Amino acid sequence: MTLPSRLTGVVPPVCTPLTPDYEVDTASLIRLVDHLVEGGSDGLFILGSTSEVAYLPDRQRRTVIDTVVGHVAGQLPVLAGVIDMTTLRVVEHARTALAGGVDALVVTAPFYTRTHPAEVARHFREVAARTGAPVFAYDQPVSVPLKLPSSLITELAGEGVLAGLKDSSGDEGSFRAVVLAARELSGFSVLTGSELTVDSALAMGADGVVPGLGNVDPAGYVRLYRAARAGDWEEAREEQERLLALFRMIHAGDPGRMGMSSSALGAFKAALHLRGIIDCPVTAVPQIPLSGSEVEYVGKHLAAAGLL
Amino acid sequence: MTLPSRLTGVVPPVCTPLTPDYEVDTASLIRLVDHLVEGGSDGLFILGSTSEVAYLPDRQRRTVIDTVVGHVAGQLPVLAGVIDMTTLRVVEHARTALAGGVDALVVTAPFYTRTHPAEVARHFREVAARTGAPVFAYDQPVSVPLKLPSSLITELAGEGVLAGLKDSSGDEGSFRAVVLAARELSGFSVLTGSELTVDSALAMGADGVVPGLGNVDPAGYVRLYRAARAGDWEEAREEQERLLALFRMIHAGDPGRMGMSSSALGAFKAALHLRGIIDCPVTAVPQIPLSGSEVEYVGKHLAAAGLL
Amino acid sequence: MTLPSRLTGVVPPVCTPLTPDYEVDTASLIRLVDHLVEGGSDGLFILGSTSEVAYLPDRQRRTVIDTVVGHVAGQLPVLAGVIDMTTLRVVEHARTALAGGVDALVVTAPFYTRTHPAEVARHFREVAARTGAPVFAYDQPVSVPLKLPSSLITELAGEGVLAGLKDSSGDEGSFRAVVLAARELSGFSVLTGSELTVDSALAMGADGVVPGLGNVDPAGYVRLYRAARAGDWEEAREEQERLLALFRMIHAGDPGRMGMSSSALGAFKAALHLRGIIDCPVTAVPQIPLSGSEVEYVGKHLAAAGLL
Amino acid sequence: MTLPSRLTGVVPPVCTPLTPDYEVDTASLIRLVDHLVEGGSDGLFILGSTSEVAYLPDRQRRTVIDTVVGHVAGQLPVLAGVIDMTTLRVVEHARTALAGGVDALVVTAPFYTRTHPAEVARHFREVAARTGAPVFAYDQPVSVPLKLPSSLITELAGEGVLAGLKDSSGDEGSFRAVVLAARELSGFSVLTGSELTVDSALAMGADGVVPGLGNVDPAGYVRLYRAARAGDWEEAREEQERLLALFRMIHAGDPGRMGMSSSALGAFKAALHLRGIIDCPVTAVPQIPLSGSEVEYVGKHLAAAGLL
Repeated sequence: MTLPSRLTGVVPPVCTPLTPDYEVDTASLIRLVDHLVEGGSDGLFILGSTSEVAYLPDRQRRTVIDTVVGHVAGQLPVLAGVIDMTTLRVVEHARTALAGGVDALVVTAPFYTRTHPAEVARHFREVAARTGAPVFAYDQPVSVPLKLPSSLITELAGEGVLAGLKDSSGDEGSFRAVVLAARELSGFSVLTGSELTVDSALAMGADGVVPGLGNVDPAGYVRLYRAARAGDWEEAREEQERLLALFRMIHAGDPGRMGMSSSALGAFKAALHLRGIIDCPVTAVPQIPLSGSEVEYVGKHLAAAGLL
Repeated sequence: MTLPSRLTGVVPPVCTPLTPDYEVDTASLIRLVDHLVEGGSDGLFILGSTSEVAYLPDRQRRTVIDTVVGHVAGQLPVLAGVIDMTTLRVVEHARTALAGGVDALVVTAPFYTRTHPAEVARHFREVAARTGAPVFAYDQPVSVPLKLPSSLITELAGEGVLAGLKDSSGDEGSFRAVVLAARELSGFSVLTGSELTVDSALAMGADGVVPGLGNVDPAGYVRLYRAARAGDWEEAREEQERLLALFRMIHAGDPGRMGMSSSALGAFKAALHLRGIIDCPVTAVPQIPLSGSEVEYVGKHLAAAGLL
Repeated sequence: MTLPSRLTGVVPPVCTPLTPDYEVDTASLIRLVDHLVEGGSDGLFILGSTSEVAYLPDRQRRTVIDTVVGHVAGQLPVLAGVIDMTTLRVVEHARTALAGGVDALVVTAPFYTRTHPAEVARHFREVAARTGAPVFAYDQPVSVPLKLPSSLITELAGEGVLAGLKDSSGDEGSFRAVVLAARELSGFSVLTGSELTVDSALAMGADGVVPGLGNVDPAGYVRLYRAARAGDWEEAREEQERLLALFRMIHAGDPGRMGMSSSALGAFKAALHLRGIIDCPVTAVPQIPLSGSEVEYVGKHLAAAGLL
Repeated sequence: MTLPSRLTGVVPPVCTPLTPDYEVDTASLIRLVDHLVEGGSDGLFILGSTSEVAYLPDRQRRTVIDTVVGHVAGQLPVLAGVIDMTTLRVVEHARTALAGGVDALVVTAPFYTRTHPAEVARHFREVAARTGAPVFAYDQPVSVPLKLPSSLITELAGEGVLAGLKDSSGDEGSFRAVVLAARELSGFSVLTGSELTVDSALAMGADGVVPGLGNVDPAGYVRLYRAARAGDWEEAREEQERLLALFRMIHAGDPGRMGMSSSALGAFKAALHLRGIIDCPVTAVPQIPLSGSEVEYVGKHLAAAGLL
């Protein structure tokens, strides 16, 4: 599969199912991929934040790549997060991912270290030059210290350094500026990670969506995408509102007892487990597991959405 | 060398000299280690933030460990940062570092992911249990999303999970609470990374200091430490004030052109180069190099401190 | 004018024109109000952030209220920001504003002090109880330390404490949750302050918009609003995109020389001056004035939008 | 009382006792002032953060000024916080305070609005020029969006704009830079608000301390100050450690139920009430009151410190 010059549609960030002893559960991962492909996904994004990439040792990241790329076998494009602190570490991950057959790389700004737009620009340029692969910028200011300025994204896109944007910034004004600029660019795809405003993003002209909740209900996001593409904004809105209600599952975990990552990723995995797609709902160490009643809260949201 | 039950004195975080093509310059690294040991250091901290650990691929991290541990050969304890996003990734680095012969591990809270004190506690407990090695907590809120609460540090110290604290939080009230609690603990060392208030920290009862600026002037920090230990607070203060003036070199870089990391680490390396200790002042990609006039600014600070 | 039970449409936050010696220029303010009313505005929001409320002494705030309420004379509703640090100070402003004849109050969370959702809830309840007036929550996390949780807003709306929301949080997921909840509420209006995504907000079901840029081009926002209400999303999008290009004027000021407030408010006032609506473009002390070339940058944006 | 050219010693930020219906309790305030003066205070700081200035309407601020200035009657200098969002609002408060007879003004950077160092400089210059009074910069980054750069403070001090610094930034390196620069300045006083590191600050060369906890135990801070001035650093350290233990009372309040301000100010007022100095421990609206068991927690700390 070569990456299309404009990647469109629903590209879920694939959860990474784990065994009770925290190894990658490849059988469950394959079932999850099937679930996403059968749901109508247009691509897959592995090793992103929703995939718990920050928690996976390199060996496990390779297992995810090999399992997904091998199973998908070119049916649809696979993007891989190559998430690490700075340039040369990212390049190492990129080489592994490209050797494993992924179609594009997803790269954040540097983190852990304090950074600057000029350093971020150099980072993306070096990653692109050293790998020769399509690079999507991953705008993720909850994880890294810097919101990517829209002007920087479009500048790098214009240079051919970036092949796309995966925007999880929540800054819709900045996102929209990139969407508008992208109309003049070829070979640049604009994807939103804001799963509660997909109808808005598509109405603006975004190419596609990378919804974490798409693990749980890929068909819902595909219906939403197709309604929007058909110009049926009323149906798109209704589907989005249904998904917004479903999304509330992420508040399952008690915030006095765990962080938002444990709660949200725990909820997605609990939902996949309740739906029979993965064998074990465990999240990676050191996240805190959901309690029985917290899992029930997830179940109620599934039931209300007609997914149980 | 076994780690002493209380690590005291000056423990510089060792810069990582690089070649012009961004490989570890082992000859320069060995000269830097000699410079630090001859300056009177009581231990070495490799692969911390000052070492540009965030920029070094695993292969380069191993080179640093092998070079420093091999050269030091047990003369003084070597602590190694095992800096990564979450538990299992940290444990991988820890195994490499321990196999390489380091005496203790330095571990931050999880980063990239949003976290919670309960998750941080689980993180430190798991790292300690899975490695069996002495673990220093690295309190570094400019790099990770969470200041380590003093109550959490002392709780983990009391459990035997932590062997020490390397505090770069700048929160002196919290630091002092740990210093006081540490009087009741055995096998727990409290080190400050706040290089401008070392006399204060020692007067409070801190065990030692991990000063980035100690790369440039280890003997200055050793004089400061010894004066404080001798109760000569006036001399300690004067030495500290001299070092505070020298520290201003970190503002060499134009903030419109680069981030604080490029400027400060660039200044330390420029100073080491000007002093003839390392061959090349380059900082890792994607940091921005200092200009000629910015290097001159560093040189003036060295000259004023009598170090040229 | 009584506030309608659901306030809809375009409600510009009215700039406060000043004289060269920093007094309220009431003649210019009246011309600006006329410009906004003639442009088709459905209400006016005075003494908000765009009005430089933070810069106006109480005396000047009263002048603004008297001037605008007196001139509008009940033609359309006037909302007034009663912006201060905590409850009793807000209540003082509220009494003045209500005595001056405004139709509703706009209230932020407490600021300067560190706060908590329980304190924010108590704050809104006390302001509503002590004034008996319609209270709009002003969600403005760039100015106050806390994003208002959507669950708190809807809880207070359900209690009758809040009559509406003016959302400048930029958190569209949270905003949408309030929009959905508001369908079950009577007497609660949801207004967005995110002026670059008005078509999106209206498509979600928002009642209206409070656009700072509406000072410069109220008719544009009115066209956008009417197109959206007519279900002509294509025209709404095109109008929004034109306004997005115009909005770039806010980057007129050199960020090395001034803050974002000086730049954006300076640009709006420069535009109003260039358009002949106000006599003097000065912003309040201690903001930094735009230079001649920075004003030219504003002028080019006006010209490109056909507004000169 | 004229402000001495260098203000030294212990200058407590005076709590504002309230009646059960949230009016200033002037009888209790006078008793508190007596308690502070008898404890050996060298000056008083009214209307700062510890005084709940953010919560007091202008009328109540005037009552505090009149009560304290009238009662003190020139025995010791009285500094007043003139805390508001921007320049002209601050100047209004300043005129009231100066008319009421205070000896100096304490001024923060602008807040609510986004600001910039150039605007902060203009702010301080304008406040000083428009009032003609001694101005202390109040560095309070938990309340305002910007840490005052040490270089800006010393620049304004050198110009004669600033008469001193009240540093609550917790950034001891920056504080120390000001202390060193102040040696070359006349008529500039450096006060720390970091009540847990007063011995450190005095050892560095600070002139004095503004300790919130000094409301509860002024004599303790006076002993600490005098020991430090006498060069008895061991006694100073012991007194500081006793006060550090006492300070833990600020954690009385349940963080799930209230913010840090409610907890800390509630604890100080509960302690003053338990010690019989003020009649009612209530904090201003919308803070959350301490529960009975939370007040007991405060009482235990008082008892342990020998203050009950």
